[in-house]
This record gives sequence, structure tokens and C-alpha cells, in this order.
Amino acid sequence: MRTIRFLSFLFPALISLHVSIAQTLLPATSPNLAQQAMIKRGYGMFIHFGVNTFTDMEWSDGSIPVEKYNPSQLDPEQWVRTAKEAGFRYVLLITKHHDGFCLWDSKYTTYDVASSPVKTDVVKAVSDACKKYGIQFAVYYSLWDRHEASYKDKDPQVYINYMLNQLTELFTNYGSICELWLDGGWDRKPEQWGVDQIYKLVKKYSPACAVSVNHTIVNEEGKRKFTPPADMTVDNKYYFQYFPSDFRLWDPKLANKADKKQYLHEGKSYYLPFEHTLCLSHRWNWFQKSMNLPVREADELEELFYWCTDNQNSLVINVPPDQTGRIREYEANAVIELGNRLGITAGKPLPRNGRFISLLQPATATSTWPDNDNRYDAAKLTDGNLDSRWASKDTLATIEIALNPAQSFNKISIFEYKDTKELPDGFSQVRLPRIQEYSVDAWLNGQWQTVYLGQEPMGDCKVIRLVRSYRSSKLRLRITKASAPPSIYEIHVIDRGNRK
Amino acid sequence: MRTIRFLSFLFPALISLHVSIAQTLLPATSPNLAQQAMIKRGYGMFIHFGVNTFTDMEWSDGSIPVEKYNPSQLDPEQWVRTAKEAGFRYVLLITKHHDGFCLWDSKYTTYDVASSPVKTDVVKAVSDACKKYGIQFAVYYSLWDRHEASYKDKDPQVYINYMLNQLTELFTNYGSICELWLDGGWDRKPEQWGVDQIYKLVKKYSPACAVSVNHTIVNEEGKRKFTPPADMTVDNKYYFQYFPSDFRLWDPKLANKADKKQYLHEGKSYYLPFEHTLCLSHRWNWFQKSMNLPVREADELEELFYWCTDNQNSLVINVPPDQTGRIREYEANAVIELGNRLGITAGKPLPRNGRFISLLQPATATSTWPDNDNRYDAAKLTDGNLDSRWASKDTLATIEIALNPAQSFNKISIFEYKDTKELPDGFSQVRLPRIQEYSVDAWLNGQWQTVYLGQEPMGDCKVIRLVRSYRSSKLRLRITKASAPPSIYEIHVIDRGNRK
Repeated sequence: MRTIRFLSFLFPALISLHVSIAQTLLPATSPNLAQQAMIKRGYGMFIHFGVNTFTDMEWSDGSIPVEKYNPSQLDPEQWVRTAKEAGFRYVLLITKHHDGFCLWDSKYTTYDVASSPVKTDVVKAVSDACKKYGIQFAVYYSLWDRHEASYKDKDPQVYINYMLNQLTELFTNYGSICELWLDGGWDRKPEQWGVDQIYKLVKKYSPACAVSVNHTIVNEEGKRKFTPPADMTVDNKYYFQYFPSDFRLWDPKLANKADKKQYLHEGKSYYLPFEHTLCLSHRWNWFQKSMNLPVREADELEELFYWCTDNQNSLVINVPPDQTGRIREYEANAVIELGNRLGITAGKPLPRNGRFISLLQPATATSTWPDNDNRYDAAKLTDGNLDSRWASKDTLATIEIALNPAQSFNKISIFEYKDTKELPDGFSQVRLPRIQEYSVDAWLNGQWQTVYLGQEPMGDCKVIRLVRSYRSSKLRLRITKASAPPSIYEIHVIDRGNRK
Repeated sequence: MRTIRFLSFLFPALISLHVSIAQTLLPATSPNLAQQAMIKRGYGMFIHFGVNTFTDMEWSDGSIPVEKYNPSQLDPEQWVRTAKEAGFRYVLLITKHHDGFCLWDSKYTTYDVASSPVKTDVVKAVSDACKKYGIQFAVYYSLWDRHEASYKDKDPQVYINYMLNQLTELFTNYGSICELWLDGGWDRKPEQWGVDQIYKLVKKYSPACAVSVNHTIVNEEGKRKFTPPADMTVDNKYYFQYFPSDFRLWDPKLANKADKKQYLHEGKSYYLPFEHTLCLSHRWNWFQKSMNLPVREADELEELFYWCTDNQNSLVINVPPDQTGRIREYEANAVIELGNRLGITAGKPLPRNGRFISLLQPATATSTWPDNDNRYDAAKLTDGNLDSRWASKDTLATIEIALNPAQSFNKISIFEYKDTKELPDGFSQVRLPRIQEYSVDAWLNGQWQTVYLGQEPMGDCKVIRLVRSYRSSKLRLRITKASAPPSIYEIHVIDRGNRK
């Protein structure tokens, strides 16, 4: 509500009094307190809920009437209970998306739940449930605001003040907040968001809160040129776009297996972990749609979990409630099953994948798609980059990876590239695997022996858990039936030791 | 070898002296000692190995030269070690198949390993390994013999004597034998095999050995008319073809979930469990072929294990060594993984599936393939018969099963019918699932809620393990995408309690 909105102009002044005592990001080569806590958490549930939920849209322009927000069985406790059952260590709640609609009763706008048909303060309900279930509470807040009038003020500080006021509400009325995820920065120049003011405000109220803005890092200081996270394998080569930030974001991209942590700002190097964001479905589906979309296969989610929570990075998986205001049963089941499979245990470090013995090992293929830049060569199979891929010229092909025979392995994960066809509804997809039948052979006792024979379409991520540990100087994948020339992002040969 | 073959004519006389003391099958409504031991074992590894292994054939006619049998790395201990690691409680070894080739050094023929290039007595090697690894030893012996000259003698007793001599070798030289599996009876009238003589001989040497002849049971006494095991749901309706027998065989058919145990002979009723036989692949593949065939999916093997070892029945899975004389690595891995998944533990009862709460519950479908005998109606989905099936007329259909809402469930198994295309090599197949996408919905709190959403082709046996237990008055399967009108053998709604 806007009743005491005039007070907002006083707040920045108040805050500035505290600037000197606020913690700022210091150059470092190891995690600071906020980063240490973030790395320890590691695994969160992202919750997108708001007016978009009721319009089958991802982004709306701020014009959707507040009456549209009308969940029939709103149950934020079910969200957090699901998160707890699934082993998530924090919940990251959308408090305001680009549309400007606020999930709490904000004094500074009427575009919020308090003015909607269902007035439950969702931020409060979720933060209360987090306390009840003993998991941490994090908030997403969009810089970009397509509803708020002050956003269009010639003086950027007017809208910055609006944000500082709202963030003060969030950081003073809902208990401890472990993370602030800022988004939508592309709509203005980086320096026009008052990120430093936001950072200082947050640190005043919650020094251990980790703060970041989406698309944190750029190639050159002051320029909006980006290198994808999967290619960031060199320290002190890339720069902050938004300073200060405690961690890196680039939704929904994946870091490299050899992800680097040192980034530059004004000649100084800062330690920055990466937070991954994933949708439960393959389709970009942050806000829930009225149609049911399939979730990723359990094996793929498991391997992505390991990938994203490794190397002091973290992962949030989006599990959006639907128009009833509840997380759908099959999606709740899927994330709880994932937690069960992983064996996540409260108070214990997150489970890890084994040792990758194939990483950067030489790989060859009997067929490669011709490209002047070698974009599809077999080396892509072991480069620790889940964006790059090997592609075959022929429909059938055999890949061979050299291994160190002193290193044992008992798990193989294969990330296949699928053909994707968007469907007319705008949300669903058909995803077609190319590899239909294949054989995984190890060189054992002087001959190739088939350790696994696949007869079903490979799928996005095929995980082969071997009942024995093998040592071998080479491993090969023979693709014996395919519907089109196959392509594979990564093959991981892993030693899990005695674990499943 | 034939050197002392003339002695064979003396043996029947010797044996007849013992007839009076030999145990015979007595009318009973509960398991006898041999049957109790058999039920306790429950799970065995079937091993087909012999001249056929070297010819890519299932059956040969007895004319294959003994020189063909020539394994390069014969390793029977690997077979038994694999069986032990996989949790099998006995090994059932082919000692002589229809071709007449003997896996041991028999005095009564030169068509045996002792006359071949690799003279290892395989029966001895396997029985010794069984003692070493602490699992029981069983033998398969073919009545039908396409090599042995005496088989063609006008007097059937001449060949019966040959068999009695060979079985005496097997039952006196290789330690304890827990089961005798006789096969090929179709080539003669039942009474011409001397089954009673064989039975008495076996019981003389090994009273706890369970004996049976394939195709044990018929519809009418003295007639070769058969009802498949899946339809045998009535006690005292069917008759022995081969008497005496301690158990029923009909390779490779499956019993009904409500399999019955009482069978008639000359007006008396006998208790008879059923022993199932399964190939590791879908293809009839008892003897190993030079080409690698895929194994069944782990989920299907798991559900079939439960099905076949339930109701005091037992299961042998065939894991045939190849021409090297070793079980192939990927096949060994598959059965060991199955044992791990099942959690089979030495000395403990075999693991069981949960309670089937859908068995014989009313089922309806929005579409059914028209048939005057209702062969494809929805009742087939819950009839406990894995041979019968529902089939749809339309490509998309929804099935609904009424449940008792007082009974909880947390697992659903769906056995889909697949289109099968035989390939020109004579061994391999293409198996095409019809169901591509589907939704499993439970009626919860007065509305349908999707508890599982399938986006991948369903496959031979889709097992949905739910992370929560549900109670519901009805369950439905919505088939939302299919490549042809779908068909399903069985849908099982199961309560596993707290087990995985």
C-alpha cells in the first residue's frame, strides 16, 4: 500500500549513515563468511509464483490486473515441506519479478498480494515455514520493474530508493535472509541500479547474506560482452559487471567442471562461487503453466545435481506452484525422489559424484561433423563443458577415450544431444534422442569386452552404474543404431569407490 | 566313453531291487521335503552350454562334430562366482541337451567333453565351484536325444537304460544334486520315457532332489492338451502328464498371480509348485550367440523376479556362457545388479513385492479393441495374468481402476505390450513400445492429481516408485501420446510399505 510512501525518500539518507559500518566485498582468494555459508548450503529450491502463474506466461509487462492473482488453495507451507522432504537447504522465493507484483504486503505499492483477492503475505508464510522446517530463506528481487511508476523517473535514484525501501521491508520484517538474487539488470546501464547501495543495505541487516545480480561477469570492464560460464576456465581474466556481488549468476547456464573463482574489479581479484539455476523440466518453465510439463529424468537430475553443487558452487532447482497455490504432486514426488536417491542428509555435507577419470583425456571418433573451427571434434566429449559437443558426420560411429589404467571406474554418464521441436502451445517440446542402441566396451585382458549393452534410446543423460570396478587403458562407445548422426555433450568416466 | 557300456543292461535290475525303498510322490496338499527345499531355494541360474554354443543354434540334431565344442577360455568357476554374486541360490546346468552332447565324461557315449578338444568335465567343475561358493547344484537332462543310437531301438527300455546309467553317473559322482529338470518329452509318448524309473533312481540317491519333466501338466489324463500356466487358477482341475513329478514346468511361460498347486493323478491330488524359466534377453536365447543381445531392463527383471518367486514358485534365469567359455561381462553385470537391487541376502528369505491392491479390481477403458470373446477388455489389466492383455481401438485412451481407499499404495508396475519385429539374423528383434507419453493420476481430495508424468516410451515394464504412500478410490492412466493403439498386459498397484 502506498499510504506511507512519502517516507521512502527518507530511507536512503538513513541508510547512508550506516555506509561506513556496512560490510563491503573485499579482494580475496578464498570464500568470505557469506560465501562460506552459501557453499555449505549448496542446494536450494527456487519458487516462482506471482501474477504470471495465472496467465500461462513467463514474463508479463506489469499490466496484468492484480485480481488475476487468485490461488484457490494457497499453501506455502506445502512448498517448504516439500523442499524439506527433498533435502533442499534453502528456499529461494520470487518476491517480485519483472512485472513488479509483490508477494508481500509492501507499503510502497498496491501491485501486491495485499491488494489482490488472496491477501496472504506469501513472503511471511514462506519465511515462517522455513523457520518451522529448519531450512534457510532466500529472496529473488527483480531490479527491472515494468509496473512501478518511479521506474520511469529521469533520476534513477528515485527508483533505487523504491527498491531500497522494499528491500528494507524484506530484510527487516521476515527474519534472517541468506541470499539476495537480483535480476533484470539488462534494462539499464549497470551503474544505474544502485547495486552498491543495495549491497550495503543488505549487509547492514544481514552481513552473512550473499548478494548477486544475474549476468554478474563480463569480458571487459564496463562492456556488456559475455563469455558463457562453461568457458570460464581461467582465473583473473573476466570482470564484474555488477560490483559488489558475492557470487556469480547466469541463469540458466552451467559452469565448467574446472570452473574458476577469481574475477577482477578495478584491478583487484575477488573470489566468487557460481549459483546454478535449473528448471525441473527441460523447457524454460519458471512460472507454472496450466498444462503439465514432464520433469527431467531422475538420472539427469542426479548428474546435474553433482555437477552444479561441485567445486564450491551451488544449485537452485525451480519447483513452481500452480494456479491452485500448491506444488503439483508429481513434481513434488520428483524432487523428493531425487533427494532420496542422492541420500542428502540434514547437517551433513552434500553428496558428491566420484572422481572423473576421463576429464581432459584424449578422445577420438570414427566420424566427426566437419567444421573449420573443430567445433564438433571428439575432444569436446571430455572437456568438462556441458555446452560443447561432439557430433558425428555418419549415422553410426564409435568413440574411444584413453584412460589411465591405474585408475578404476564404476560409473559412466553420457549426456546426449537431442533434437528439440517446440510445440505450438509455446511451452511443450518434443525431444528426440538420436542414439537408439549402443555398446560400452572396456579394454580388459587384451580384448574389448562389452560392460553395458543399451537397447533403449539413450536419452538426455544415460547413467551406467557398473556393479564392478574396472581398470582399463581405454573405453569405447559403439553406436550401433541411430535415427540421425549422433551428437554427445560429454562422456564422464567416474570412480565412485564403494558408493552406489 | 563306451568301453563299459555293456554294463548298462545290468543297472535296471540293480535299481529295481531298490524300488520298494525309493521315495515316491505321495498325495499331499502341502510341500514334501524336496518341494520345501525347492521353495526355499527359489532363485537359480540356468546355464546352457554345449555344442550349440559353438554353432549359433538353439537346437542341433546330434550331428555336430564333437570337435566343434572348443571353448578358448573355459571358466566354469566364473559362472558360479557370478551366480553367487548375483544372489542365485542354485545353478541349474545343462548336462545334456536334445543334441545328446554330454558336459561330463560319460562311460556310455563318446559324444561328450572327454572326446572333445577341451576335456574339462564341466559337470564336475560346476559342482565343485558350487561347493566352494556354497550354492546348490541342479541338473538339466534331455530325455530326447538326437545323437544316441539306442534312442532308436524298438524297445524303449534300451534307451531308458542308457538314461538311467547316465543319471547314475550324475547322481553318484558329483555330490549332492538338488533338482533334476527333464526335457524333450514331446518326442515320445509320456509312458515311453520311464519317468517312474528315473524318479525312483533319483530318489534313491538323493531323496530331497526335486524332479520334473517339461510340460508336466495336461487338461485331460492321457491327452496332450495343454492349458497355459497363466490360466491355471483352479485346484484339482488339471492332470499330470508325467508322473511322478515334484514340480511343474512349462518353459518359458509365466504362472498366474493366483497360481494353484493341486493337480490330479489317478484320482488323487498332489501339491506341485511351478518353476519359471526366463531368458536374460527377450529373445529366446538359451544358448549364447556370437552376436551380443541386449538384456531385459532392470525394472522388468525385478518385477518378473517377484512375480516368479512368489506363491511358493521358483525362477531360473538363463545366463549362458559364450564361445570363450565365460559369461559375458555385461550379462554378468546385469544379473549382479539385479541381485543388488533386490537386496537378496544369503540365508534370508527371498525379497518379496508388496501387496497387490489392484488385483481383480474393476477396470474400465475409454477404448477397447472389439472382440467377440472380450479378449482385450480392460478386466485383463488386473486379472493377474501376464499373457492376457487389454488393447485399445483408438491411439489415445484412458484406463481407470477402482481401488479400495482403505488400502495404501506406493508402487505401480505397468507391463506394456510391444510390437516385435524379428530381424533376419534369426536372433535379434526390434521391440517397439506404443505408449510414448502418459500420466498416472490418483483421485485425491476430491480431484484427479497427477502423481507421475511419463515423457519417455513406456517400455516392457514401467515401474513407478512413489515417494509417498497414497490412498485413493481410483487410479487412472491417461495415454496422451502413442505411436499405435496401445495395449497393456497388466497394471499392478502395489503397497510396498516402507520398503523401496
